[in-house]
Amino acid sequence: MVTKNQIKLVVSLKQKKYRSQHGLFVVEGEKVVNELLKAGVRPFKIFVDDADKVQKFREAEMVPKKDLKQMSSLTHPNGILGVFYMIEGEGNLNPDWVVVLDSVRDPGNLGTIIRLCDWFGIKYLVCSKDTVDCYNPKVLQATMGSIARVNIAYVDLEEYLGKTNLPVYGAYMDGESVYSSDLAEKGILVMGNEANGISDEVGKFIAKRISIPQFGSLSTESLNVATATAILLSEIRRG
Amino acid sequence: MVTKNQIKLVVSLKQKKYRSQHGLFVVEGEKVVNELLKAGVRPFKIFVDDADKVQKFREAEMVPKKDLKQMSSLTHPNGILGVFYMIEGEGNLNPDWVVVLDSVRDPGNLGTIIRLCDWFGIKYLVCSKDTVDCYNPKVLQATMGSIARVNIAYVDLEEYLGKTNLPVYGAYMDGESVYSSDLAEKGILVMGNEANGISDEVGKFIAKRISIPQFGSLSTESLNVATATAILLSEIRRG
Repeated sequence: MVTKNQIKLVVSLKQKKYRSQHGLFVVEGEKVVNELLKAGVRPFKIFVDDADKVQKFREAEMVPKKDLKQMSSLTHPNGILGVFYMIEGEGNLNPDWVVVLDSVRDPGNLGTIIRLCDWFGIKYLVCSKDTVDCYNPKVLQATMGSIARVNIAYVDLEEYLGKTNLPVYGAYMDGESVYSSDLAEKGILVMGNEANGISDEVGKFIAKRISIPQFGSLSTESLNVATATAILLSEIRRG
Repeated sequence: MVTKNQIKLVVSLKQKKYRSQHGLFVVEGEKVVNELLKAGVRPFKIFVDDADKVQKFREAEMVPKKDLKQMSSLTHPNGILGVFYMIEGEGNLNPDWVVVLDSVRDPGNLGTIIRLCDWFGIKYLVCSKDTVDCYNPKVLQATMGSIARVNIAYVDLEEYLGKTNLPVYGAYMDGESVYSSDLAEKGILVMGNEANGISDEVGKFIAKRISIPQFGSLSTESLNVATATAILLSEIRRG
């Protein structure tokens, strides 16, 4: 059973404003619901449209297909919709490296970067306030359970970078080759916006500009921010 | 002016079968049309829906908005549609490294991998016949002009790998760490399917299995094939 008010609540969660207000977010699909449960994220409600799935998910409630369709963001709902409580970050970690995103706008890129942070054991991801919301459904589709294992904060970057004692590295097209850079044991890696790179305001806090050297034709476009993050985190961890 | 037959031709190019038959492919949007022209890809027709754009593209023909909408694959056509001749590969390059894709299905992944090959100066990309078509519109949107600078072939991988003299490396979850692997001067790097990795048939030809070590929680999903390719190509080139 799902009440009209519950449907209204779930629909409202498509907007960031209501996600923040209620402290809830929505994912769709068996795989991602499973990943979040496995990662220990607390479910608020899980709605499914057939009896088999009720067997699989103890918490699930069966609802008519038409109600699920009403709640879904998908043109073709896939039979399972989970509403979860937002993840509370661990407060007192002592991180070695922190990734900072300056205005990353594409949900797929943010999703991939969260998964990369998880892979490379980066515990903190700090985002500018205009970076895409990490509870956006497309971000969640790309991160899967990784979102539960990386602490993500949205802050004023100038304030944050003004206070840190860690060395601040930034990815630029014209920086020093990361292959020959001497990376510190601990630090902050700043990645910029898809079209414009790191903003001038944030750039003031960067102590060292690093680059990924290009081996092909000079007319090649710059690397995508997610693939560049992959390579730089690999360089940080490979030692 | 665009004739009914031309509209029919452009619409038919949404299907791979007709793209191969006519040796033509379609892209939409000013940026990608520009990139292809800059990269020297030969245009067959460029259709635009306003006079300003005719100024910008010498080859452009102005057509009514409703005709452009009919030819477009987009819900909201963006005012420019280019039909280009397929790119002919250079035959006699002597490549150092070749990337081989075994059944990569996601257009965004293939697009990103083509752009990475271009960045890292990889001249040959060899794909299994069931890898997504490189002239698929979503692939082209992700590669931009890079498609003109990487030679892409669709072949029977078992036949291809059976004949090569280059050492064959494959990306696996349980291979030797790429950070400590001694990579040859020249070689072939095989990347597998998004869900299943490298198939058993192709696996028989792999001389050395390599992996990207994981630093985070063990429950993390594997890296996406495009980000894994980014890291491995960086390792190959960093020396």
